[in-house]
Amino acid sequence: MRRLGLALFVIALFLDSAIADSPQPSDNAPLDGFSAQRAGAEREWENKFRTIPSAQNQRDYMQLLSARPHHVGSAYDKQNAEWILSKFKEWGLDAHIETFHVLFPTPKRRVLEMTGPTKYVAKLQEPVVSEDPTSNQRDEQLPTYNAYSHDGDVTAPLVYVNYGLRDDYDQLQRLGVSVKGAIVIARYGNSWRGMKPKIAAEHGAVGCIIYSDPKDDGYFGGDVFPKGPMRPDQGVQRGSVMDFASNYPGDPLTFDRGDPNAPRYTASDAPSITKIPTLPISYGDAQPFLAALTGPLAPEEWRGALPIPYHVGAGATKVHLVVESNWDVKDVNDIIARIPGSSEPDEWVVRGNHHDGWVNGAEDPISGQVALLEEARALGELLKQGWKPKRTIIYCAWDGEEPMLLGSTAWAETHGRELQDHAAIYINSDGNGRGFLFMEGSHSLEHLMNDVARNITDPESKLSVFDRERMANIVDAKSDEDRKELRQRADLRMAALGSGTDYTAFIDHLGVASLNLAYLGEDDGGIYHSIYDDFYWFTHFSDTTFAYGAALSQTIGTAVMRMADADVLPYEFTDFADTVQKYTKDLKKLLEEKQGEAHEREQELKDNAFQATFDPRHPTVAPPPEDIPPYLNFAPLENALAALNKSAERYKTAFSKAETAGFPGSEKQLLELNETLIQSERRLTDQAGLPRRPWYKHMIYAPGVYTGYAPKTMPGIREGIELRRWDEADAQIVRVAKVLQAEAAVIDSASADLEALTK
Amino acid sequence: MRRLGLALFVIALFLDSAIADSPQPSDNAPLDGFSAQRAGAEREWENKFRTIPSAQNQRDYMQLLSARPHHVGSAYDKQNAEWILSKFKEWGLDAHIETFHVLFPTPKRRVLEMTGPTKYVAKLQEPVVSEDPTSNQRDEQLPTYNAYSHDGDVTAPLVYVNYGLRDDYDQLQRLGVSVKGAIVIARYGNSWRGMKPKIAAEHGAVGCIIYSDPKDDGYFGGDVFPKGPMRPDQGVQRGSVMDFASNYPGDPLTFDRGDPNAPRYTASDAPSITKIPTLPISYGDAQPFLAALTGPLAPEEWRGALPIPYHVGAGATKVHLVVESNWDVKDVNDIIARIPGSSEPDEWVVRGNHHDGWVNGAEDPISGQVALLEEARALGELLKQGWKPKRTIIYCAWDGEEPMLLGSTAWAETHGRELQDHAAIYINSDGNGRGFLFMEGSHSLEHLMNDVARNITDPESKLSVFDRERMANIVDAKSDEDRKELRQRADLRMAALGSGTDYTAFIDHLGVASLNLAYLGEDDGGIYHSIYDDFYWFTHFSDTTFAYGAALSQTIGTAVMRMADADVLPYEFTDFADTVQKYTKDLKKLLEEKQGEAHEREQELKDNAFQATFDPRHPTVAPPPEDIPPYLNFAPLENALAALNKSAERYKTAFSKAETAGFPGSEKQLLELNETLIQSERRLTDQAGLPRRPWYKHMIYAPGVYTGYAPKTMPGIREGIELRRWDEADAQIVRVAKVLQAEAAVIDSASADLEALTK
Repeated sequence: MRRLGLALFVIALFLDSAIADSPQPSDNAPLDGFSAQRAGAEREWENKFRTIPSAQNQRDYMQLLSARPHHVGSAYDKQNAEWILSKFKEWGLDAHIETFHVLFPTPKRRVLEMTGPTKYVAKLQEPVVSEDPTSNQRDEQLPTYNAYSHDGDVTAPLVYVNYGLRDDYDQLQRLGVSVKGAIVIARYGNSWRGMKPKIAAEHGAVGCIIYSDPKDDGYFGGDVFPKGPMRPDQGVQRGSVMDFASNYPGDPLTFDRGDPNAPRYTASDAPSITKIPTLPISYGDAQPFLAALTGPLAPEEWRGALPIPYHVGAGATKVHLVVESNWDVKDVNDIIARIPGSSEPDEWVVRGNHHDGWVNGAEDPISGQVALLEEARALGELLKQGWKPKRTIIYCAWDGEEPMLLGSTAWAETHGRELQDHAAIYINSDGNGRGFLFMEGSHSLEHLMNDVARNITDPESKLSVFDRERMANIVDAKSDEDRKELRQRADLRMAALGSGTDYTAFIDHLGVASLNLAYLGEDDGGIYHSIYDDFYWFTHFSDTTFAYGAALSQTIGTAVMRMADADVLPYEFTDFADTVQKYTKDLKKLLEEKQGEAHEREQELKDNAFQATFDPRHPTVAPPPEDIPPYLNFAPLENALAALNKSAERYKTAFSKAETAGFPGSEKQLLELNETLIQSERRLTDQAGLPRRPWYKHMIYAPGVYTGYAPKTMPGIREGIELRRWDEADAQIVRVAKVLQAEAAVIDSASADLEALTK
Repeated sequence: MRRLGLALFVIALFLDSAIADSPQPSDNAPLDGFSAQRAGAEREWENKFRTIPSAQNQRDYMQLLSARPHHVGSAYDKQNAEWILSKFKEWGLDAHIETFHVLFPTPKRRVLEMTGPTKYVAKLQEPVVSEDPTSNQRDEQLPTYNAYSHDGDVTAPLVYVNYGLRDDYDQLQRLGVSVKGAIVIARYGNSWRGMKPKIAAEHGAVGCIIYSDPKDDGYFGGDVFPKGPMRPDQGVQRGSVMDFASNYPGDPLTFDRGDPNAPRYTASDAPSITKIPTLPISYGDAQPFLAALTGPLAPEEWRGALPIPYHVGAGATKVHLVVESNWDVKDVNDIIARIPGSSEPDEWVVRGNHHDGWVNGAEDPISGQVALLEEARALGELLKQGWKPKRTIIYCAWDGEEPMLLGSTAWAETHGRELQDHAAIYINSDGNGRGFLFMEGSHSLEHLMNDVARNITDPESKLSVFDRERMANIVDAKSDEDRKELRQRADLRMAALGSGTDYTAFIDHLGVASLNLAYLGEDDGGIYHSIYDDFYWFTHFSDTTFAYGAALSQTIGTAVMRMADADVLPYEFTDFADTVQKYTKDLKKLLEEKQGEAHEREQELKDNAFQATFDPRHPTVAPPPEDIPPYLNFAPLENALAALNKSAERYKTAFSKAETAGFPGSEKQLLELNETLIQSERRLTDQAGLPRRPWYKHMIYAPGVYTGYAPKTMPGIREGIELRRWDEADAQIVRVAKVLQAEAAVIDSASADLEALTK
């Protein structure tokens, strides 16, 4: 699971909201995509649906599913898969297990010690907590490790690199410290963890230690487990360090299962395996290493919450690191459950959450899995009561998400052609907490999700979750301008999809419009990927009443039903057009900033500013000169945006008119229209993919090559600018413009279909 | 001493610099205030002067003056005074000691203990460090305490209040925590320490503990003493907690010695003594108390660097605090040394730095005192070589600064009438370090100080200290706009004077144009007001070669000479006019922000935003409604600014013309002109003083009633707005406008005098 934690507050700036309080709509209120006549029935079914998900059931499921460690290849993981299968069947869904074979390394040897000037041997072991009944299942627990670390045995000086991002290495260069031939120690956070060994190796490091600083999820954030929810001193974050963002997620040996001509690899040449040995440790283990470092004092923002001065190194501190794995191929078992569509069975609504954990995995992923299960049970109930969804609904319980989306990627790739033909939406979740509705996804679904959010009652405030989030965003807004937009824009803005969870193959590889949803933001925690992420922790410190678990079932189930039942699929394109316009503005601003910085650096180098301010007691190195970014030709993109805006407005008018008229066309007309609409997200992909990562085909959203979790919007252009590949950026503008022109064309075609209905 | 520390970087935003490199001027270059013919001679004397100050002498003086504890009333403080007197005399200055009697409390009883739920007795003792030869003089060291704390013996629950500022209590209110009847624990920093018990008492607290968080000057900033310069775990910051900013500095029993009709107090009714008992402690002592707190988690920015979750309280944690002082009257001994002026003896250039310390006080104040002594020695040398300053120069070594400016205030008040008639400038220092020239002061002196800074060579970069600071500001600038101003404005901006050191009575009470100068910004430290501020620390971690000590002598000595020798005193008023224009803009912006905030709060209260976002597990309280700030009438101020601008420009033209003409008037004409100019800063005062603090008479600069150290510019208006006294703010605009109109008139009168010279 990607750690969403308190990300809500980070994205609050980008979230907007509606003009006035949005009362719960009456059963007669219009419903986007439904004729007036069908809207009432739909609302009735949705209301029925929302009464069914049970908090108590979710609690019971969690207790069972998290009772023992259930990582990929474990006996309990298999047992959970069988149990989930049986439940889907019991509830009336047409379910089966699809099994895939994937490379999944497990620890064989792990050593971390300081050999000089003082000695310290890292414990690498999370202690049993007596209050916590599942923390003692040591025989079944995976030891603390980073999956897909390169095997290695290295001894080298140690250097602290903060979060281990590229900017951090720029700062190290200013401090005159090199990591060539060194082992780096980076703190967890601010990127996909696999970026840390990747970037370290690119700078010449020979090993990588990743630790959890107490500033980030330990005592700085509150009382530590078991007294509180935060990470105790020997708690370790396991996790994959696969370099998926530059290559591809899923089985490292298999590039695109859907393409028999795609390359295949072995464990020794798979590009997504790290280049240097990598091991995660606790802050209890990290402190002796960090305290032993000498050299320059770390920049202020690098300093964590350990009670020591943070030095960067490298001095005499020598470290010995050994990582060796069993490189086995294991089974992953995806459970796939189907509700066939009654009238448009070839249009699919796909919903997923993974079931494997790193250890007991109660929050991650079971808190999301139990919400999914209650959705499935409730839909089964509705079927018994006579509900007939137009479209096919597919519920998926993924295996192998933790190592890096193994189950979802294998399934999506295997069924790629069908999904591209049929999938109208993929809705993901990956755990759940307490608080505010967190929404990210394709912006053609932004309006749908806002409408759904208006219909869900927040368990704490009893307002709609839409109103609650709108208010939270207003209260937290950082500027009057943001607040003004928040009060004026009809829909709350959704964040873009990055990666780190199972929507990745759907959105990035196949171009299926996707959403990722959760409740979060009221509780903090520090048990992520540790043995303490279990039923005891969850029922003491998170959504203890499972009220938000029930709310998540209601939220996602409502979205599933609305997509499955609509006369016309409720995509909306003005929000999308508005969003890509904003992305374009951001890109121009980024380029301008880079130009300004380069000019300023040039001037300062010319003025010898760095020599002038040099402190002989704390020596620094002048930054290297950098080329001045050229102006780029944004005109193709601007022309495409103009076309897109026009198309989106035309569609909105046509849709509204057709809806008012009750969508009067023939079944065939509507079928064709919906099939056109399904293709709209696909138009945003390009089969050649992004530069140097052809698996990633979406031209608007991708995980960053150097962020992993965080999205890069219009990634070809943005990363061209960020990586200073000016010609590439110019060329990518043309490609993005092309998909947006294609998008405008498909929207126009849908508009024409709609207009034909009311002619 | 006011802790300047790394304040440089805080004020960097407000500092500007010149268009191009400023080469050292040749001896023929014009010199503001000197005829071309006298400029050459002046430059020659200044060049001679700058070769004399010796780093080795400064080192020797420091070793002697800091050899033993030398607080007010101690034997060594007296001995130092006698030694300084003998040196001034030896160097040919006309010196004497002026002794004043002042209330100076010393510790009688100090107890701090946690009585429940766990027990802990605070050590309240700084340990001897074996490497440090003066740290073991326990018999002579003042115990750790806050001077002018109210006596008291209280037992109460404990509440953590961050820095203990008014905003912090607003946040506590939001968390639903009251300090009524509680003992507060506040961390040092972000205000004059006396604000902490003052504001605590205003909120109903019965006791106040102040501790040094390791985030602020302990291990977070680097290695701790004796390995590094930062505060060790049992190091304590002593210091005065007198409430001088709302009342008056100096002897608490004596309101304005210069006025026999002013009120006199006793130790039991003196308004500047705290209302509640207050005691400072180390972070070693603080940790058990803070770790025992329960209640809400402290807001993120409140959390320091102790390895604990910071809770606010108040829970079951009970604390017993006893503070009792010996309320004795002691002598303070100011050493006053005079060089009589040759032609304009009734125009005075006054220079001071204190000599008393809290313990051994090597950095504070001796590092500044030794620079002053070398200036005096060098001026003595020049006198022997035939230099004849036009004006009288007065060197002052103040006693009793630490308790709160006792010696300087007593002297300035006693000689108030003379100083108002004669003083052209007061130049203060209060310790020195290594790095960049820190300048703050009256803005009619901004141009003079910039010119001096262009003539001083930085010991490390060999650039002028002006160029070095200009470059540092450019490199550290936070925005393109700031950087642009930095490259375009001729003079570096100076900060305004707040308080916390000996310029206070001169600028705030008497209206003598003042400066405060130091080198700093390259080293950090955590020995402030502890037993470790001694020769060992200073010679290991600060200006170890005393190169910047010599530079400070050169800098201030040059300014002293230039003011003492000029044909026409080199005040400049366009920088001043530009600065007050900026202050006015700031005030309007402040009012606008307050209006915006109040409107937003009103809207959110109306929208029930706080109920909407309420988290039942972390309950908060809605903020109280507040009145909407009215629009204020800035017109009088704007009219005054227009007049001031015009006058300043006229003066600049007249001055330049007269200078080019060689200041051709008679001695009497120049004398009258200079006497007019000396009065210019006096015009900025108003005898009625600021609202509720009549001792403070300057209408443009004052220490903030709730900041103490930090200045409030146009304080009557600014604090009227900040304290939401709208009618008062409106009335104060009129008063400020009046002094600025008077200032414009006096400048016009000087312009007329200058114009007459060249008619």
